[in-house]
Amino acid sequence: MTGERQDTIVTAAFLVIGDEILSGRTKDKNIGYLAEYLTALGIDLAEVRVVPDVTERIVEAVNALRARYTYVFTSGGIGPTHDDITADSIAAAFDVPIDHDPRAVAILKAFYPEGQLTQARLRMARIPQGAELIENTVSKAPGFRIGNVHVMAGVPAIMQAMLDAIAPTLKTGTRILSRAIDADLPESRIADRLRTIQDENPGTMIGSYPRSNDGRFSTQIVVRSRDEALLERAASAVSEAVAETTRQAPNP
Amino acid sequence: MTGERQDTIVTAAFLVIGDEILSGRTKDKNIGYLAEYLTALGIDLAEVRVVPDVTERIVEAVNALRARYTYVFTSGGIGPTHDDITADSIAAAFDVPIDHDPRAVAILKAFYPEGQLTQARLRMARIPQGAELIENTVSKAPGFRIGNVHVMAGVPAIMQAMLDAIAPTLKTGTRILSRAIDADLPESRIADRLRTIQDENPGTMIGSYPRSNDGRFSTQIVVRSRDEALLERAASAVSEAVAETTRQAPNP
Repeated sequence: MTGERQDTIVTAAFLVIGDEILSGRTKDKNIGYLAEYLTALGIDLAEVRVVPDVTERIVEAVNALRARYTYVFTSGGIGPTHDDITADSIAAAFDVPIDHDPRAVAILKAFYPEGQLTQARLRMARIPQGAELIENTVSKAPGFRIGNVHVMAGVPAIMQAMLDAIAPTLKTGTRILSRAIDADLPESRIADRLRTIQDENPGTMIGSYPRSNDGRFSTQIVVRSRDEALLERAASAVSEAVAETTRQAPNP
Repeated sequence: MTGERQDTIVTAAFLVIGDEILSGRTKDKNIGYLAEYLTALGIDLAEVRVVPDVTERIVEAVNALRARYTYVFTSGGIGPTHDDITADSIAAAFDVPIDHDPRAVAILKAFYPEGQLTQARLRMARIPQGAELIENTVSKAPGFRIGNVHVMAGVPAIMQAMLDAIAPTLKTGTRILSRAIDADLPESRIADRLRTIQDENPGTMIGSYPRSNDGRFSTQIVVRSRDEALLERAASAVSEAVAETTRQAPNP
């Protein structure tokens, strides 16, 4: 059919590795950052998992996710200490050997002063066989990519730098465009209209997000689509419905 | 054996439901809150997943998690709009019917002024058969518990209120105690000592968390144990190791 769209869909999962997130001691900052970053690139983040520093749990999650999505990104567990078990777990997931990688050793040798490349620091050069290194412009110790899995550090500044290094290598899909409409209404007052608009606008996804501020409820309505014309049409209908509903009875 | 500890382990998973978290438009605030809350209660948060507003994905995740952990908590998708599909998805996961629940209808009737309990608002009274209601002191529309799954709202203030309503009903385990030691050192300088201390202190978990602040690296070391005496011993060893290493060569 003429004018039929051919959207390219690229999907991703994010695996956050670390006891400290699950205990609540560290508040994750990477999920929101990666989500926005991938959305901007045209990659759909389709699932996130957080697992503890336990080999079997990492192996299981990596294998489940890499079979299902175009890309997997991981954060955490690639430092020099005994609790950094991500690289070994990834090697186990792919069933490949792991050892000090000469390219990674060279990077660390160039970075640390003579005599300071300790056994612990050398641990950061352990890379599964067949992996490519991911540059770390912040603190040098590299991440790595093996298959469709990208292994990054958990420290936000380092993860973000590694993501910048990875981005040019990723295939990207048709971006999901979005338009947000703020409604000074509780979502229950606009719900019936939104359902109708959603039914009348295939090819769009209309989300309704309630907010509460000191007991006062308002709503952000987000229209998303890979097609700009469809997006515009649905967003206009939502804006009109919000304006009409508000005129009928403003939020007290 | 006399003096043998009998720890009670209670586990939980958290399922965050919502396209808006995966697109990055909304930054999750519930994971960190729930993690800290459960840790304080003596419940080990063992896994988190974030999935989109897609029935099959919610069903699959709920069924995987409820089979594996003592408790499952969910957030998001129980409002009045067309994209709120959590209650129906949970009913599908448990293979039970779902309809307007008289108890929930009564709560909404008492809350909304005469004539304002619209079809959309009534949708919030859809509860799977056999579930118990979870009180919502903020905006009335209840959550629910079915089996070991607790279904809560996504708006943080409401989720937090529901959690307070749930807490007294939960069985709790032996709390994991923790002690944090701040080291003004990059973690690679303390890594060898930490590994030895971990080896010498079974019954404790020693985590090392690097931080970077404008390119300056420091480390927080967290010792955890369900046994206070073991915790104290390991934490003292870590403090001593940090002090000695810092004396040898302070962080430049």
